Amino acid sequence: MPVDAGRIAGDIKAIAACTPKPGHGSDRPTFSPAWGKARDYVIAEATKAGCQHRIDAAGNVHIRPKSVDWSTRCWLAGSHLDSVPGGGDYDGVIGVVAALEVQRAAAQDGQQSLPFEAIIFAEEEGTTFGLGMLGSRGWIGTLDAPALAAVRNADGKSYWEAGKPHEADSSRLESDRLRPADWLGFLEVHVEQGAGMWKRGESVALVTGINGRRQYSVTFRGIANHAGSTGMGDRHDALAGAAEVIAGLESLAPALGPRVVATVGRLSLEPNAVNVIPESAKFTIDLRAPEDATLATGDTRIRALISAAAEKRGLKAEVIQTESLPAVGLDAGLAQRVRTAAGRLSLKSLPETTSGALHDAAILAPVVPTIMLFIASRDGISHNPGEFSRIEDATTATRLLYETVRGT
Amino acid sequence: MPVDAGRIAGDIKAIAACTPKPGHGSDRPTFSPAWGKARDYVIAEATKAGCQHRIDAAGNVHIRPKSVDWSTRCWLAGSHLDSVPGGGDYDGVIGVVAALEVQRAAAQDGQQSLPFEAIIFAEEEGTTFGLGMLGSRGWIGTLDAPALAAVRNADGKSYWEAGKPHEADSSRLESDRLRPADWLGFLEVHVEQGAGMWKRGESVALVTGINGRRQYSVTFRGIANHAGSTGMGDRHDALAGAAEVIAGLESLAPALGPRVVATVGRLSLEPNAVNVIPESAKFTIDLRAPEDATLATGDTRIRALISAAAEKRGLKAEVIQTESLPAVGLDAGLAQRVRTAAGRLSLKSLPETTSGALHDAAILAPVVPTIMLFIASRDGISHNPGEFSRIEDATTATRLLYETVRGT
Repeated sequence: MPVDAGRIAGDIKAIAACTPKPGHGSDRPTFSPAWGKARDYVIAEATKAGCQHRIDAAGNVHIRPKSVDWSTRCWLAGSHLDSVPGGGDYDGVIGVVAALEVQRAAAQDGQQSLPFEAIIFAEEEGTTFGLGMLGSRGWIGTLDAPALAAVRNADGKSYWEAGKPHEADSSRLESDRLRPADWLGFLEVHVEQGAGMWKRGESVALVTGINGRRQYSVTFRGIANHAGSTGMGDRHDALAGAAEVIAGLESLAPALGPRVVATVGRLSLEPNAVNVIPESAKFTIDLRAPEDATLATGDTRIRALISAAAEKRGLKAEVIQTESLPAVGLDAGLAQRVRTAAGRLSLKSLPETTSGALHDAAILAPVVPTIMLFIASRDGISHNPGEFSRIEDATTATRLLYETVRGT
Repeated sequence: MPVDAGRIAGDIKAIAACTPKPGHGSDRPTFSPAWGKARDYVIAEATKAGCQHRIDAAGNVHIRPKSVDWSTRCWLAGSHLDSVPGGGDYDGVIGVVAALEVQRAAAQDGQQSLPFEAIIFAEEEGTTFGLGMLGSRGWIGTLDAPALAAVRNADGKSYWEAGKPHEADSSRLESDRLRPADWLGFLEVHVEQGAGMWKRGESVALVTGINGRRQYSVTFRGIANHAGSTGMGDRHDALAGAAEVIAGLESLAPALGPRVVATVGRLSLEPNAVNVIPESAKFTIDLRAPEDATLATGDTRIRALISAAAEKRGLKAEVIQTESLPAVGLDAGLAQRVRTAAGRLSLKSLPETTSGALHDAAILAPVVPTIMLFIASRDGISHNPGEFSRIEDATTATRLLYETVRGT
């Protein structure tokens, strides 16, 4: 079998070394030197396997066998190389490596004309520019050039400014759009990033749907005042209001459904001094649910929670919805093709699940038949240097990917 | 009457101008250029009124009439010029200005030998070096030279490094200690920084006690994980734990007593990203109460609250008590002297209260007979650019201060 566990392990190790402090997790913001190094590594490996590549206007890298023309209708597979700050070595990487390994295996198998393209999407995580899946959204057209000009990274650079040295190019964005008819389907291999599969002893799972997501930026404004001389009844404490909302979300999410999650990941205070009652508390809310109706109910309840916490303390509350991505059902026909391929490989089992996390697959699914494969994450740890998945599971997923795209 | 409202108003205005952005509240960290400018203004005004000055080892400025020898037993009055970030123009300033105006009034009255010293304490607020009342504690001896060498400001400089250009000098600290026998008593005029007096229509109040304070630095450590794929039951969310404590403190404080307050003023998260469950949440707690027994009960309850929040979520909790200052009863004899002086001035009323905020007076009270005078704060706003007190109230307090120290 030409899908090779050793090569997969080597790729993961090589990409994990592309970070400012190797051994301390991955720090690869999109368009950073570390990110560029990881991308260059994949391109170099693909070139060795007889592939050509091109970079689209949104900064995504496309890799096909040299003998497959850029106009040939193809399968598409891949994921991302960018990471959250202090992220893991598997998130995104494993999907890119699986697609790269399929190119290598096909070349070894003499299948140089396999209509298969590997893709590296730019900026999936959303931590570099404050908004996720920019590469896929730019390519699909759900974000246009001005929208990508408006986002800024930590250096104050827009997507286009930061991406220019990496061949992102706003002037080509309109003409370089994905055309759905060009694609047989999209497959993304990814780590689960939850504890479910690992707990159940599962190796690889077929993902039939992706939770939708709404994100909010909330600001409470009260009055900064002296922490000693201001009676508890005379306070307008912005952090106390935020705490009520954060605590409320912790019980609201499970009340909405077993697969619903709500997170406050970011919070900052002004003036942020030990003896001053906080004047403002600014924080994010990230809500995910498998059905759009649940997201809508969650939206209403979150706004009510915020209003109640503000009113009780005489605070001004501002709620900005920064993102709304619907729940996504993945392609039933492609799912069946994967099940058939799993049968041909005599896989012991192919459990099915839905994804709590969003992925580039959620962006492509409305326009191209799309499916995902999950591999188990140890103890569900992700977005953390302790993230770990088994090479044997990655290898099984890669074999299944290869079998699916080459199957008849 | 030589105590002059116009001069008091002029001083407050001049000192308010000593800040990087005049008109936007006061930003005068101790040993900053703005703080030095304010200090120089007061020294220059006192010099015009025939005073001499000296700076003690801890960086406090002492001002007496030239005709009063440094060895003469004196009354002491004053406060501080440093401010919290984005602070008000009255907090501390009004106590320094009242003492300065007494020097001017005494000189005008021909009382050049009035045994009266004005003092500007260095670093009362605690926001510059993370710990309050450093100037008074250094002078009294409850903080020694190594303790002041251990604290750091935002530039990473210790108290001694930052204070050197302003004549703070660790080598003189032991020899330059306050000797209780040198002082007749200490009087601090200050804004109330709470809403009580303003609501009741009071102008000046006699303060007979000061709340004690305990401060804590709390760190919750959980596991950073993906905000979408980690089920609510699989989380170890450090911020959710902190939110439970913050919300709990809001109801704990009033349950401990009507004058008890608890504040979380500072909070920071790691990694602080929208789609990552917070791994750590670090925050401060500031607890104040009029009796030591209440502080002790509060300490027990706070620790229980923290343990419960941590245990529920599988978090590690670290609690460091960063400060413990006992509740302080002020001097009964000096209080009676103030009441008598108020009677001589035919003040309409002299209500009595206790202070929710700590002041340099709390540091001096154990060694020198000490009393405070409060003037009303509009709507209780303090540690905020919107802080305001009436010049007529400041003038009344200054007259009362002058009458108290010159009275027989």
